[in-house]
Amino acid sequence: MNPYSSKLLENAVNELASLPGIGKKTALRLALHLLHEDMENVETFGQAIIQMRRNIRFCKVCHNISDKETCEICSNPKREQNVICVVEDVRDVMAIESTNQFKGLYHVLNGIISPIDGISPEDLTIGSLVEKVASGKTTEIILALPATIEGDTTNFYIYKKLRPYKVLITTISRGVAIGDELEYTDEITLGRSILNRTLYQGS
Amino acid sequence: MNPYSSKLLENAVNELASLPGIGKKTALRLALHLLHEDMENVETFGQAIIQMRRNIRFCKVCHNISDKETCEICSNPKREQNVICVVEDVRDVMAIESTNQFKGLYHVLNGIISPIDGISPEDLTIGSLVEKVASGKTTEIILALPATIEGDTTNFYIYKKLRPYKVLITTISRGVAIGDELEYTDEITLGRSILNRTLYQGS
Repeated sequence: MNPYSSKLLENAVNELASLPGIGKKTALRLALHLLHEDMENVETFGQAIIQMRRNIRFCKVCHNISDKETCEICSNPKREQNVICVVEDVRDVMAIESTNQFKGLYHVLNGIISPIDGISPEDLTIGSLVEKVASGKTTEIILALPATIEGDTTNFYIYKKLRPYKVLITTISRGVAIGDELEYTDEITLGRSILNRTLYQGS
Repeated sequence: MNPYSSKLLENAVNELASLPGIGKKTALRLALHLLHEDMENVETFGQAIIQMRRNIRFCKVCHNISDKETCEICSNPKREQNVICVVEDVRDVMAIESTNQFKGLYHVLNGIISPIDGISPEDLTIGSLVEKVASGKTTEIILALPATIEGDTTNFYIYKKLRPYKVLITTISRGVAIGDELEYTDEITLGRSILNRTLYQGS
């Protein structure tokens, strides 16, 4: 006997359980929740996901997610056109945008080099970044990739590719987070924060 | 500016975040995962949920989820037709079925009485349970509802409704779970396990 009492329920549970971080028990809870929602809401739910996958576009300049051919950031003349911040994915663009500290453009790699996960440089948008820099309008590339082996590898790969061009390559600063206690900070971060100390500027 | 860079992404994130226990950050992670899946898989995902909601049926006898008019349990002549186990929802049927200890029938209430959540006896399938008992074929009702105030209220409500009929009303046993240590068991459970002690039967 089918433990789900219904093939339709079983299918829905299996599909929900295919999402990352969602197990069978959670998937069943979500499926039963959807089963007790209005038909109209469930239709909207399913269609929103299908429509997203079917119709979403990626900005042809920075590869960020976009509804138009060129995203709002790339097509905004008020942004500094000569500074490009390189990030792993669209979530990082959202995170940096929410700081209101960056007025330049982005370049979304759609991943980082990771031999374990089978992601090689060709799978990323590094080629289009090099082309952009080669065209000569860029004066600074800010590398804002994760501080992991994969992030460091990707940083170094991009650095080697961009070395022939006259462009400043910087990385975001690493150090003790604001609000964190020194005694609970890991040694590598604390050590880096001393090496990369900045001039105290009074108030 | 839309922080999601795309209305389509925003819609999908909002829909996913409407699921219980899923916040905006998780919803975004799930949406980006789906965005990098094959179109075909995402279509299957959305359709599985819509089809489940549209076509699923409830057994007209026990109100369990079913693909047919009468569920596999109710239509199985090998099950004991005179014992009915009353449960809150379909998950409890699955849990009890997986023990292989129960050969009777079920009655799914689709909830329990909970004034705080606005769930009154009329919202549940208690009426159809009473009809079933009134028809005279049932000799025992096993109440397997949660040991909460709502569960106790529902137990008592059903008990009052079924008192006029000649039917044995039992509840599942409560006690120290197998594998649990006495010192970590809460006082109420431990107290109940002493009050409701059973005869030691040797091997």
